[in-house]
Amino acid sequence: MSKEITSREQDYSQWYNDLILRGGLADYSAVRGCMVIKPYGYALWENMRDVLDRMFKDTGHQNAYFPLFVPKSLFEAEEQNAEGFAKECAVVTHYRLKNDPEKKGKLMVDPEAKLEEELVVRPTSEAIIWNTYKDWIQSYRDLPILVNQWANVVRWEMRTRLFLRTAEFLWQEGHTAHATADEAIVETKQMLDVYAAFAEEYMAMPVIKGVKSPAERFAGAEDTYCIEALMQDGKALQAGTSHFLGQNFAKAFEVKYLTKENKQEYVWATSWGVSTRLIGGLVMTHSDDQGLVLPPRIAPLQVVIVPIYKGDEGKAEMAPHADKLIAELKAAGIRVKYDDNDNTRPGWKFAEYELKGVPVRVTLGARDLANGVVELARRDTKEKSTVPLEGLAERIKGLLVEIQDNLFARAKAFRDAHITKADTWEEFERVLDEKTGFVSAHWDGTAETEAAIKEKAKATIRCIPLDNPLEEGKCILTGKPSTQRVLFARAY
Amino acid sequence: MSKEITSREQDYSQWYNDLILRGGLADYSAVRGCMVIKPYGYALWENMRDVLDRMFKDTGHQNAYFPLFVPKSLFEAEEQNAEGFAKECAVVTHYRLKNDPEKKGKLMVDPEAKLEEELVVRPTSEAIIWNTYKDWIQSYRDLPILVNQWANVVRWEMRTRLFLRTAEFLWQEGHTAHATADEAIVETKQMLDVYAAFAEEYMAMPVIKGVKSPAERFAGAEDTYCIEALMQDGKALQAGTSHFLGQNFAKAFEVKYLTKENKQEYVWATSWGVSTRLIGGLVMTHSDDQGLVLPPRIAPLQVVIVPIYKGDEGKAEMAPHADKLIAELKAAGIRVKYDDNDNTRPGWKFAEYELKGVPVRVTLGARDLANGVVELARRDTKEKSTVPLEGLAERIKGLLVEIQDNLFARAKAFRDAHITKADTWEEFERVLDEKTGFVSAHWDGTAETEAAIKEKAKATIRCIPLDNPLEEGKCILTGKPSTQRVLFARAY
Repeated sequence: MSKEITSREQDYSQWYNDLILRGGLADYSAVRGCMVIKPYGYALWENMRDVLDRMFKDTGHQNAYFPLFVPKSLFEAEEQNAEGFAKECAVVTHYRLKNDPEKKGKLMVDPEAKLEEELVVRPTSEAIIWNTYKDWIQSYRDLPILVNQWANVVRWEMRTRLFLRTAEFLWQEGHTAHATADEAIVETKQMLDVYAAFAEEYMAMPVIKGVKSPAERFAGAEDTYCIEALMQDGKALQAGTSHFLGQNFAKAFEVKYLTKENKQEYVWATSWGVSTRLIGGLVMTHSDDQGLVLPPRIAPLQVVIVPIYKGDEGKAEMAPHADKLIAELKAAGIRVKYDDNDNTRPGWKFAEYELKGVPVRVTLGARDLANGVVELARRDTKEKSTVPLEGLAERIKGLLVEIQDNLFARAKAFRDAHITKADTWEEFERVLDEKTGFVSAHWDGTAETEAAIKEKAKATIRCIPLDNPLEEGKCILTGKPSTQRVLFARAY
Repeated sequence: MSKEITSREQDYSQWYNDLILRGGLADYSAVRGCMVIKPYGYALWENMRDVLDRMFKDTGHQNAYFPLFVPKSLFEAEEQNAEGFAKECAVVTHYRLKNDPEKKGKLMVDPEAKLEEELVVRPTSEAIIWNTYKDWIQSYRDLPILVNQWANVVRWEMRTRLFLRTAEFLWQEGHTAHATADEAIVETKQMLDVYAAFAEEYMAMPVIKGVKSPAERFAGAEDTYCIEALMQDGKALQAGTSHFLGQNFAKAFEVKYLTKENKQEYVWATSWGVSTRLIGGLVMTHSDDQGLVLPPRIAPLQVVIVPIYKGDEGKAEMAPHADKLIAELKAAGIRVKYDDNDNTRPGWKFAEYELKGVPVRVTLGARDLANGVVELARRDTKEKSTVPLEGLAERIKGLLVEIQDNLFARAKAFRDAHITKADTWEEFERVLDEKTGFVSAHWDGTAETEAAIKEKAKATIRCIPLDNPLEEGKCILTGKPSTQRVLFARAY
């Protein structure tokens, strides 16, 4: 099978699509820009969601669910937010179809069923949620509100890519309300830390924590914090954002609370989200020309067992050994599949599970079993070894940890090797074109310069890293003074 | 607090709304017919979802995710299904808003951003899914497909009720594809059994398994199986459905497979779903005039501990006892909350957790602790008892099982006492008006009679029970011969 996958060198973008489609993660759909998340891709998303959900709950958040639709009058209440999303939103205008009198068997929008007020399919839920919080918040006793929502959202993007940019996507959006700015900022940073920990510890995807330049902020935010990852083609990917919203939504929706001192004050807000886009990032961080490479901690399958036998008799002889091994692996908490499907040959299965990125493959052969050994193959390094059956579950448990660590170390080494300082415009462009990756360079801090750089070099400011040292320097484009370097990159 | 709840006797419908709103399950929203599911209600839904999801996976199903939107041309492909849902669907016609030139700060639909083809917000996903299955199914080797989706759907209902009937609701929809009719029918019935087991074993809500009359079938189904529950006001509630779809969708979307004998055959289908409506059924099965009564197995909180102390010193003295108890309960797998909030008094807390339906309350008092005892209060029977601290976790574990069993037994006794045979029209109407509940009566099997009964008595055929005995009789309305009784009721 693997021969049908385009190599990264040949066509990186096609390689990515091949992996998503042939690896069984997603499919195109009949709806422009929308995808079907296939069972294997959804199982991956479930594992990611479950870990994140646990992390949100451990930091005191609860889940809730708010309407899919935002009435236009609410949508437009916070002006910056409305302006940011108006250009790409799906709008419901009617609530009924009727038989088309001119075309038998066809339906048409019923002009008599026009909504009095149009409904926007949520591109994000600040508006509908803050309109609700107005009823939930009266006094300081009602604060903080720490709520998260798992939902689908729609942004009518013109250029879509499976997982990376789809018209509809799945995500979580946290929306919190606080009595003070300080508390909201602490929350904003805490959730950025949660995202970074998730990306690095579970996805094995190294990220840089930083803050966005004003031009790259979320529409309606005072500050946008982000985690930025680096893909194998040297392009950056924004993998999660956490916004300090100030009092913008509280003012737009008149959400005030009574302080302990009996004063009315506007409430402070945050919002934060990650989406199915993370799956795109995951694929482009670890995978290779043979297929997906998935980190064990979130892989739908951690181990696949492929038996090699001849005929029904061989299969029957193999079964008890397999059953015993499966039971041991399951008891050790390992997600395992035994593939004794007779419709495909072992060689086909090897290629298939390589394509699907299953971290460990165990090959069971009759002769090996007689000798008390099995063959193990690692997906990440492609190393094979023959090991004793005795204690196999423990060995595999350790191997999964080793693979997880190796994936992170490899991705981090690649990322670190692709952060380059540039001090002249020529250097800046050369790095972007040849070496690719993040370019650490001085910028004069103005939106005009940022826009000019974007125009000239197709690179954007990904973030100002949180741990950035102050350093005197001159702007890469204008030569004006600057106090710190920022990270530029071409990005998804 | 409880005094503010309308009693069932006073106004059943208002009692229901009071419980949902004041119990913290849901809120009205700014969008017509849509609700906000609040954290406590969503935690309940999460528990229900997690159990169902496990049951689906244990029966071989996998989750996937399909687009929110159904292009009109796909929506209309299966005629019966389209006809069934066209009258109540939300339609997206545009993909952009722009500034309204006549009203500063306001937005309007951009007439230049009209979609070439309208998109229906899914009221159910057979159309979009079968259009996808066309690409997934070539040969018998690709079958069966056993897929489930957790999603939001929209049906533009005119009369809405929190949880019971909302324009947007959350649900799961299973969509399976099979090589033979027999296999699809086995699947349809299996999932009905899963629903019944879930309703009875987890929700403690007794249900009758049956099949719908042709008039009450899902639009596009050959047969609709259902579970029917009985609410405390004597009205029935359809709590879940499982449909044998025959080859209707396969034919509409041209989904054929190559048999082992090398023939092209249409694929056989099922679909099955339960929704957040179940929460409405849960509330109306067990709750009382003091508030919600939740079954322990799915209650967000199983135990609340309310300490009684004086001042900060008393609170500090209480803490180590509480910590120890909480640790013991958590170790026993019990969902517990310790409420030592100083803003509210114990009496207020008692009423609050009674309203919220927490199955067991533990009251910690200083004197009791000195004597090595605590007070336990059961939500279901309102019984209180003083029991030793020693072995409390085990005792509570047993008590939770007892409460779960008691709730089911109580609801089943009520339901069984409300299934009444009627052999004349007068009896039929009298039972519906006075005793309420299910009426087991003969029907001549025609749609005309069914419609006439609905018109005259406002009662519908809820189902033909699966275990129905054959019995000669005469139709309650027309006197024509009938071979079995069916269950009628007024219903939600």
